[in-house]
Amino acid sequence: MPFVHIEMVEGRTVEQKRELAKRVTEAVSEIAGVPAERVHVIFQDMKKEDYASGGTLVLDK
Amino acid sequence: MPFVHIEMVEGRTVEQKRELAKRVTEAVSEIAGVPAERVHVIFQDMKKEDYASGGTLVLDK
Amino acid sequence: MPFVHIEMVEGRTVEQKRELAKRVTEAVSEIAGVPAERVHVIFQDMKKEDYASGGTLVLDK
Amino acid sequence: MPFVHIEMVEGRTVEQKRELAKRVTEAVSEIAGVPAERVHVIFQDMKKEDYASGGTLVLDK
Amino acid sequence: MPFVHIEMVEGRTVEQKRELAKRVTEAVSEIAGVPAERVHVIFQDMKKEDYASGGTLVLDK
Amino acid sequence: MPFVHIEMVEGRTVEQKRELAKRVTEAVSEIAGVPAERVHVIFQDMKKEDYASGGTLVLDK
Repeated sequence: MPFVHIEMVEGRTVEQKRELAKRVTEAVSEIAGVPAERVHVIFQDMKKEDYASGGTLVLDK
Repeated sequence: MPFVHIEMVEGRTVEQKRELAKRVTEAVSEIAGVPAERVHVIFQDMKKEDYASGGTLVLDK
Repeated sequence: MPFVHIEMVEGRTVEQKRELAKRVTEAVSEIAGVPAERVHVIFQDMKKEDYASGGTLVLDK
Repeated sequence: MPFVHIEMVEGRTVEQKRELAKRVTEAVSEIAGVPAERVHVIFQDMKKEDYASGGTLVLDK
Repeated sequence: MPFVHIEMVEGRTVEQKRELAKRVTEAVSEIAGVPAERVHVIFQDMKKEDYASGGTLVLDK
Repeated sequence: MPFVHIEMVEGRTVEQKRELAKRVTEAVSEIAGVPAERVHVIFQDMKKEDYASGGTLVLDK
């Protein structure tokens, strides 16, 4: 603990996820006062047909 | 906000998701009193080997 | 199955949740082709200090 | 209800998931006092590039 | 990792959660082949007005 | 989108959440290439009797 779930539309590279995991872990560790190795970051990619805002699929925008 | 996550066994078509996103957004916007463009709907498909009810995988039913 | 999680900032009444559960269940049952009694709807209220958009807590907006 | 979501790094076999669904359902049914057929278990596999602990992707460990 | 989220209608005692955490951790550790100390179990209680099945709040059943 | 859910044992102050929301939003916006106002951060506090690692509730540690 802490557990951080990050949902994004698919398309980010492994390098972006590498950098995001590092930066988010640093922020959570520093501010929440928890050792970095106890911070878990989980990425959940969403397909464009699986995410809608305003009632319209991103696929159709 | 609001965020709506809908988990279903895989197999629904894009057209079904299109219609679901529309209808669910309308209901949430109208009843919760939030502009439709601020309603987010996320579909999470489950493989048949990833969902069990009664202790049995849907795959095995 | 299906499971529908609806996250909203706290403040909606039980009556609004009653109506939302009904309307969302109808939509999911009809469009996804699943009997209504197998549709589960879960509301998750967020306190104003627990939700931020644009980097600012709703509490501070 | 109850709903049990189990997130694991991908790689477990269907047989492991079959056994896990059975054992977890038994424990929840027995201890929470709910009929087994009302216990839902959902597996969510994480790719190695989608999970980081200590700021490092499992992919890079 | 693994992470286990267990959603139940509120009302289970701390003792039930203690026993559930133990039994579920044992099952996951044994079957998924992961040391017990790396298994995380999170309980999420649902109020009766926050969970509906068949379009009806548990509160109203 | 993106949506960031941060689960922590309860006890962090509003000020810590304010700072976390700001820093996590900056990191996600910059690295994922999304305007900050489209980044949503949701905090989910866990009671000590609702989180276990290694089969033991934090409450009992």
